[in-house]
Amino acid sequence: MLSENIERIRDLIKANDTNELKSILDQLHPADIAELCDELEQEEAQYIYMLLEDETAADVIVELDDEARKEILETTPSETIAKRLDYMDTDDAVELMRDLDENKQEEILSHIEDIEQAGDIVDLLKYDEDTAGGLMGTEMVVVNENLSMPECLKEMRAQAEEMDEIYYVYVIDDEERLRGVFPLKKMITSPSVSKVKHVMKKDPISVKVDTPIDEVAQIIEKYDLVAVPVVDSIGRLVGRITVDDVMDEVREQAEREYQLASGISTDVETDDNIVRQTTARLPWLLIGMLGGICNSMILGNFDSVFLAHKEMALYIPLIGGTGGNVGTQSSALVVQGLANNSLDAKHMFKQIAKESVVALVNAVIISMLVYIYNFVRWGATATVTYSVSISLFAVVMFASIFGTLVPMILERLKIDPAIATGPFITITNDIIGMLIYMGITVMLS
Amino acid sequence: MLSENIERIRDLIKANDTNELKSILDQLHPADIAELCDELEQEEAQYIYMLLEDETAADVIVELDDEARKEILETTPSETIAKRLDYMDTDDAVELMRDLDENKQEEILSHIEDIEQAGDIVDLLKYDEDTAGGLMGTEMVVVNENLSMPECLKEMRAQAEEMDEIYYVYVIDDEERLRGVFPLKKMITSPSVSKVKHVMKKDPISVKVDTPIDEVAQIIEKYDLVAVPVVDSIGRLVGRITVDDVMDEVREQAEREYQLASGISTDVETDDNIVRQTTARLPWLLIGMLGGICNSMILGNFDSVFLAHKEMALYIPLIGGTGGNVGTQSSALVVQGLANNSLDAKHMFKQIAKESVVALVNAVIISMLVYIYNFVRWGATATVTYSVSISLFAVVMFASIFGTLVPMILERLKIDPAIATGPFITITNDIIGMLIYMGITVMLS
Repeated sequence: MLSENIERIRDLIKANDTNELKSILDQLHPADIAELCDELEQEEAQYIYMLLEDETAADVIVELDDEARKEILETTPSETIAKRLDYMDTDDAVELMRDLDENKQEEILSHIEDIEQAGDIVDLLKYDEDTAGGLMGTEMVVVNENLSMPECLKEMRAQAEEMDEIYYVYVIDDEERLRGVFPLKKMITSPSVSKVKHVMKKDPISVKVDTPIDEVAQIIEKYDLVAVPVVDSIGRLVGRITVDDVMDEVREQAEREYQLASGISTDVETDDNIVRQTTARLPWLLIGMLGGICNSMILGNFDSVFLAHKEMALYIPLIGGTGGNVGTQSSALVVQGLANNSLDAKHMFKQIAKESVVALVNAVIISMLVYIYNFVRWGATATVTYSVSISLFAVVMFASIFGTLVPMILERLKIDPAIATGPFITITNDIIGMLIYMGITVMLS
Repeated sequence: MLSENIERIRDLIKANDTNELKSILDQLHPADIAELCDELEQEEAQYIYMLLEDETAADVIVELDDEARKEILETTPSETIAKRLDYMDTDDAVELMRDLDENKQEEILSHIEDIEQAGDIVDLLKYDEDTAGGLMGTEMVVVNENLSMPECLKEMRAQAEEMDEIYYVYVIDDEERLRGVFPLKKMITSPSVSKVKHVMKKDPISVKVDTPIDEVAQIIEKYDLVAVPVVDSIGRLVGRITVDDVMDEVREQAEREYQLASGISTDVETDDNIVRQTTARLPWLLIGMLGGICNSMILGNFDSVFLAHKEMALYIPLIGGTGGNVGTQSSALVVQGLANNSLDAKHMFKQIAKESVVALVNAVIISMLVYIYNFVRWGATATVTYSVSISLFAVVMFASIFGTLVPMILERLKIDPAIATGPFITITNDIIGMLIYMGITVMLS
């Protein structure tokens, strides 16, 4: 949204011109109104929110930032929230309810008029947030496999009335078990004499209620689905997950890897709370601090090296930095490869062999260049000239193999390899780098 | 796919048991066959590929890894490729064609029997790969706004026959300009007496052929669409982009940020080519090397400091590492916030203020802890005891503000802020950190 438009809306709020505001809001898509509310100050957003019809308000609140949503929910009466939940898909309603405490949840549930909707929400709240059950909604068109196509069409028409959009029709047997699916396309291209079970695609791809969300995302991505049906432990159809919810998951997963690699333990991008911001970052900084102190102890044991060759100290940042950079590169490639399934932890040795060759090329180039620089600066006979280059070579090789090995081993141990990247790899490489540097210098002295 | 199954398939290939293999492949989804081919050795994958029907082969090749696809395309005759392109959606066909050189492209095009398909592919190849035009396909159901609903249904039926799936029907006027859209749902719920233009949703969300892909992804994500229509400069409907292609884009974009932050300039995850692997990594390593040499020069100018307090050298890794860690955290949060629109470059000072408070808390905690350690180790009067802690405090504050500022300024200058994270921020913070450390020590001595 253009900033001029936001200024205009701000002015209208100040002037209390509700008619003009309402006519502007009428023109906007709920997602745009949500974007507007995210940009405005809290009181202004509240003002806009109060002007909206229940149905639009429901669509807007689903699209708001976590922070803005929380602020609005806190000041909205439970009765109003209940009315708006009625207009939401159950998956969106549940996502919103999860942010509230139990008392508020119960208060809102008691105000929901549609008992079926309230029941669905209560049921869905029981599932673990990180599983298919926690992400699914119950809005879907479901028909029995024994219906004829005209009966099916009639049934669909009745069910579709209440829904925003439908893309698939799910087919169940008399025991409510998922038997098939057909894309809406079939509705208009199939001969009307057939029975549903003869037209449907049998054994559709589905997920279980306890399938982890990242697997659901992989399935939807792999099979290019628009929605995936969710079944319980005995195969009964209990819900569906749509691609838009999964897309958020794909983005969050990729962002999470990046955050972990950057030493941030939880998603605090939009969080204004200083305590949460600090607790997300301090742990890695403290581990980095311990690494630094550890390094100071190691270096303290090599007093004699620095006394004999005081110029050795100048190359500490170069050795440490190079190890960190190389290790970060190797581990990032492995973590991403494992996450998007282009790499398999079974192929560990193949990957290490590949990384070793790349490392060898980089190690030779970097050591040679630094050798030339030091040759000019200190002369060919100075210990530092060859000790720094030999150390760099060893550090690049070590950091590269270590950065590949650690995430692959973690994956095999079923530990999220993303936690190994960034700070952990950097700090370990820094310490090992110092040990290599001091060791080689002592050997050469 | 389970490794036992892969072993079984390997054995069948060795035994040349094509009948059994074909019956296994018949049971598999094309995406699963692609996954299988990615796992197998090149010759084995080739063997499997040759057993497939043209239509399945087309679906499989679309789903293959870049590497595996390239290998298979190189050994498949142009005539066979042409036959398979005929079964693909034009967007998939174009994506595949882009990997081939011009001669091969022309050879394949000359073999495509469906002239319309060939023409569409030629037209689509002209668009820039990173725009909506380069990602769109031409398969869609399009009806004129003046049709009656029964006419429309008939038209849809005819067009849908040739398509895998349809989710929206696009409505155009006599000049082929996009006028509206209706979800398939309307097909079954709308009264048959209406004209298309009275049932459709007017002014649908659309993108232009030259809209950058990341904007297309944002639009599809924001409005929760399953597909978005693409129009040319005068509003004529020329194609559509589906959510599955955009999901790949969302993942790639998030992965790209992470790679840049890790000092990898192009996507080389699955690339076995050593030259490409090296050129993707060496630039940042060389910049890191220059940074390290730069640091050695800076430290070389403070000989007197190290002579007076030789224990100062031991804290070089701690100071450099902490600056790097803090800077990486701050810049990663800003880069992600800017990429997913939760942060706006206009709010630079608000973000810096927020980061400064978090930095202050972290700086105080880290400096205090290190002070206590050094107090015990060197005593309260040693220069190193307070110089290291004061430097750490300054470095954390600087690195945090610098890491926030740089990506925000780049965003304002319309330069991708992701290039600022990782190596650049780490190296700069390392150098500035040394300057701060030396400067403060000189002042305190």
